[in-house]
Amino acid sequence: MAETLFDLPLVLLSNRGPLTFDRDSSGRTVSRGSGGLVSALAGLAEHLDDHVWVCGAASEEDAAVARENTDGRVAVQMHPFPHVVEGDPDGPALRVRIVETDPAAYADFYGVWSNPILWFIQHGLYGRTLSPVLTQSDHTAFESGYAAVNLAYADAVVDEVRARGGKAVVLLQDYHFYLVAEHVRRQCPDVVLTHFIHIPWPSADDWRILPPAIRERLLYGLLGSDVVGFHTRRYATHFVQSVQELLGLPVDLDELTITVGDRTVRARYYPISVDPAALDSVAGSAEVVEYAATLEQFFRDEGRQLVVRVDRTDPSKNVVRGFLAFGALLDQHPELVGRVGFLALLQPSRTDVTEYADYIALVGAVVAEINARHTKDGRQPIDLRMVEDFPLAVAAYKVCDVLMVSAIADGMNLVAKEVAVVNQRDGVLALSENVGAHEELGEFAVTLHPFDIQQMAEALYEALTMPAPDRHRRMQAAGEQVRTYDVARWLNDQIDDLRRLAGFV
Amino acid sequence: MAETLFDLPLVLLSNRGPLTFDRDSSGRTVSRGSGGLVSALAGLAEHLDDHVWVCGAASEEDAAVARENTDGRVAVQMHPFPHVVEGDPDGPALRVRIVETDPAAYADFYGVWSNPILWFIQHGLYGRTLSPVLTQSDHTAFESGYAAVNLAYADAVVDEVRARGGKAVVLLQDYHFYLVAEHVRRQCPDVVLTHFIHIPWPSADDWRILPPAIRERLLYGLLGSDVVGFHTRRYATHFVQSVQELLGLPVDLDELTITVGDRTVRARYYPISVDPAALDSVAGSAEVVEYAATLEQFFRDEGRQLVVRVDRTDPSKNVVRGFLAFGALLDQHPELVGRVGFLALLQPSRTDVTEYADYIALVGAVVAEINARHTKDGRQPIDLRMVEDFPLAVAAYKVCDVLMVSAIADGMNLVAKEVAVVNQRDGVLALSENVGAHEELGEFAVTLHPFDIQQMAEALYEALTMPAPDRHRRMQAAGEQVRTYDVARWLNDQIDDLRRLAGFV
Repeated sequence: MAETLFDLPLVLLSNRGPLTFDRDSSGRTVSRGSGGLVSALAGLAEHLDDHVWVCGAASEEDAAVARENTDGRVAVQMHPFPHVVEGDPDGPALRVRIVETDPAAYADFYGVWSNPILWFIQHGLYGRTLSPVLTQSDHTAFESGYAAVNLAYADAVVDEVRARGGKAVVLLQDYHFYLVAEHVRRQCPDVVLTHFIHIPWPSADDWRILPPAIRERLLYGLLGSDVVGFHTRRYATHFVQSVQELLGLPVDLDELTITVGDRTVRARYYPISVDPAALDSVAGSAEVVEYAATLEQFFRDEGRQLVVRVDRTDPSKNVVRGFLAFGALLDQHPELVGRVGFLALLQPSRTDVTEYADYIALVGAVVAEINARHTKDGRQPIDLRMVEDFPLAVAAYKVCDVLMVSAIADGMNLVAKEVAVVNQRDGVLALSENVGAHEELGEFAVTLHPFDIQQMAEALYEALTMPAPDRHRRMQAAGEQVRTYDVARWLNDQIDDLRRLAGFV
Repeated sequence: MAETLFDLPLVLLSNRGPLTFDRDSSGRTVSRGSGGLVSALAGLAEHLDDHVWVCGAASEEDAAVARENTDGRVAVQMHPFPHVVEGDPDGPALRVRIVETDPAAYADFYGVWSNPILWFIQHGLYGRTLSPVLTQSDHTAFESGYAAVNLAYADAVVDEVRARGGKAVVLLQDYHFYLVAEHVRRQCPDVVLTHFIHIPWPSADDWRILPPAIRERLLYGLLGSDVVGFHTRRYATHFVQSVQELLGLPVDLDELTITVGDRTVRARYYPISVDPAALDSVAGSAEVVEYAATLEQFFRDEGRQLVVRVDRTDPSKNVVRGFLAFGALLDQHPELVGRVGFLALLQPSRTDVTEYADYIALVGAVVAEINARHTKDGRQPIDLRMVEDFPLAVAAYKVCDVLMVSAIADGMNLVAKEVAVVNQRDGVLALSENVGAHEELGEFAVTLHPFDIQQMAEALYEALTMPAPDRHRRMQAAGEQVRTYDVARWLNDQIDDLRRLAGFV
C-alpha cells in the first residue's frame, strides 16, 4: 500500500527508535522495538526505497553503534532475522540514524522537561496550589536540555532532508520535539511535515503554567509543521484555541486551521489504533489460550463475573478512584460480593519519581482496605498484580466481562481497542470520557466520569447487569470499528493528507 | 443617573444582601453590608421606585426579620440613619426580601458545593490526581443543598417578578445561583436577565471534573439568562467554548453568542471596579494618614523600598510562591538585602477547611525560612501580619513601591485597582497574568507568571529598579484607567445592554 503512494523520501523522528541494539555472550544483538507506533511506522518505512528514521540512543550499545557509523547511520534488514547490512541492502531494510546527545543535556530534556513537566501539564496532573514551582534550574534545564536536544535532533533531520535534495515528507512524533518543526522549516522550506502528538492537548489555562518565554517557543515550534496531528477532535480543537488565546494568531475553529504569516497550519485528528491481525495471532497462541483457561477457572467459576484493568501505575490512569468506585459498588450492592472479581494488571512506571512511588503505595493501601472489607468465603474481590505480561493481559482481555479504563486523561488508550478485538465474552467496555478512545468507542461503552466514584460505581453496575443482547451488539460494533480503523488506516490517512498538501492528488 | 434609565422594575439576587440585621443592648440594629458590589448595587437600587433585593439570611437576626415580615419583605431607609420603615417609605429606601432556608440544605449549598467545589473548579485548585473524589454524599448534597436552595431563591425571584406583572430587569450575582436563571425564565418568560459571575470561568476540561448530570444542569441553568456577565473577555470566551464543547450548542465565538432553541444568550464582559471618591475619602482620613506616616518611618527610612501584598489566605492567591520569589530575589541580588522590605497583610479565610489551614501553616514556614536566611542589621525582610484592617491596607497602598498580586487565578482583584487610585509613591503594580485586572492594567504593570518563581523574582527586580519617569507614567495611566472605568461604569454598562435587549433604545 504505502510504498506506492510515495513520491518523496521519508524522514521520521521519534525519541525511541524502531531498533534496539544490545550485547549478549554472542556479541552485538539487534531487535525490533515494541509498541504499535514502531510496528506501524517500521512496517511502512522498510518498504520505502528512500527513508531514514532519526532517533535517540536508548542504550550503551545504541550509542556505540552511533559512534561507529558515519553520522550514526545504520541499515538493518529484518528478515530472515534482524541484522546490520553494510552498503546497499538487497530487499527491504530499515535505515536508522541514531543521535547521541550529551547525557546531562538528555537528562534535562527527558527527566525534567518531557517527563514530568510536559507530561503533567498535558494530562492535567499538577495540583496548582503547590506544584509546579518553576525555578531558575528549570529555566536552565529548558535551555541546555530540552532546547539543546531538540536542536541536535533537528540538525540531524535537516541533514537527512538536505542529503535528499531538500524535499522530503517528515513525520515527527510526540511531545519530546516541540521545537523541531520550526527549525526544520526554516532550513528546509520545501518539506511536507506532520508533527503527531500522542498525548492529550489541554486548554490555554493549562499552558499558562509555563511562562510565555517558554510556552510561546513550544507553540511556535509546532507551527513549523504543515499538519499538527492528534488522536481526537477535542485535542485538535484545544490546540487551535490555545494558539488563538496565547499567540493571538488568526484561526478558523471550524476548519481547524491557523494562519502563520503566509502559511496555513492544519490541526487534524487521526485516532491511532492496533494491528488486529497481530493481536489475533497473539490471542490464539498456546500461551494465551492456557492463561485464559486458568483465568476462567479461577475468576469465572460458578457464573462469577470478572472486571479487568491493565495500566501503567501513572497517576493519570486514575487507579485509586477506580478501586474506590469498585469498593462503592460492593458497598451498595452486597449481593455482588463474592460474585464479581477484579483483576488489575499494573505495570510499575517511573518509580524513581516521588509522585509515582507515593501513588503505588496509595493503590496498595486502597486495595488492602477494600479486600479486608469485602473478602467472602476466602475469596478477595481485588487481585492486584504488579506485572508487565502481555500474554497474560491478552488472556484477560479475552475472558473479561468488563474492562475498566478510568483515566483522568489519556491520549488514546489502546487497551480498550485491544479488548474490542479479542474479547470472547461479550464484555462491556467501561471507558472514561477523558480517554481518546471514547470519541470512537463511547457509543458502544458505558461512560465513566473519572472524578466521580458514585457515577463510576453505577456505571460498573450497569455494565455487570447489562442484558446479553445489548452486550453482544455493543462489543460486535466496537470490534468492527477497531478492525476498520486499524493502525494502517491511522498512517494512511496522515499520508493521504500530506500527499494532497504536496500537490500529488 | 441610573434611576432615569429604568422603565422596568428591578429584581436583584445575591447570597449576601445589602443589609445586616443584628441585636445589641438597644435592641435590633441594621447596617449596610460592606464591599464594592453592595455599594454599587445598593446605590442604584435605593433610588428606584420599584425594586427588591432578594438575599439570604446571614444571621439569626436576619432570619427573625424574615419570619416577622410577609414573604420576608422589609424596607430600610438609609438616611439619616438606617431604619426599617413600615408601609410606603417617603424618599429613597432599600427594599429587601430575606429568604430563610433549611440550615442543613444551606450548609450543603454553601459549605459543600459553592465553596469548595465550584470555587476550586473555577480557580483551578484541584490536584486532580487525588482530589476531588466525588461520592454519593456529594450527589445528595447537590440535590438537597445546591439545587434546593437555588430553587427556593428562584421561587422568591419569580414571586417578586410576578408581583410586578411578570416584567422586570433581573440581576443575578455569582456562582451560588447557577440554576436560578433557567427557572425564572420558564416561569416569567418576559424578564430581561443578566447573571454576573465574579470569579474566573475555566475551560471545558475543568468542568469535566463534574459528571454531565451536574455540569449540564449548571450550564443550562445559566443559559436561562439573556446575558451572562464576566470580568474579562478571556472568561467570556471560555464560557462560550465550554458551552460549545460540553453541550454541543451552536455558538459564535467572535460575537460571543450562544443559540439555545429560539433564544440568543450573550456572553459579555464588564470589569468590576472601585468607587474612587469613597477610596479618596478613606485615604485622606486621619487614621490612614497616621498609619501611612508610621509605615514610611518603619519601612521606607533611608531610601529603603517597600513591597506590599494584601490578600485573603486563599490558596488561589499564591502567597507561598510569592514569598519564594521574593526569597529568590534576595538570593540573587544580595545588594537588596536590608534595602527592601515586604509587608504582607493577610486575612485568615475559611480556616475550618483543612486545605486552607495547611496553607496558612506553609506560609508561616516559608516566611520564617526566608527571614532566617536574610535578616540583616536586626531587620527582617518580610513582615507578615494576619490581620484584616482596611485603613492599614489603604495606608500601605499609599506608600508602597511595589504591589505584588501573584494569584494563580482571581476573578478581578480589586487591590490592584485600589492601589492605582491612592498610591502616592509612583509604585509599580506587579500583576499576575491570571487576575482579571491584568486585562485592563497589564500594560501599565510588570507581569508575573505565577507558577514561575524565577520569572517573578526577575519581575520584582525590574519593578524595584524601574526608572522614576517610567514608574510615574505607568502609575498615572493606571490611575486614570481606574478612575474612568469605575464601579458606576461597571453597572451602567450592564444596564445599557439590558435596556437595548428590552427594546428601550
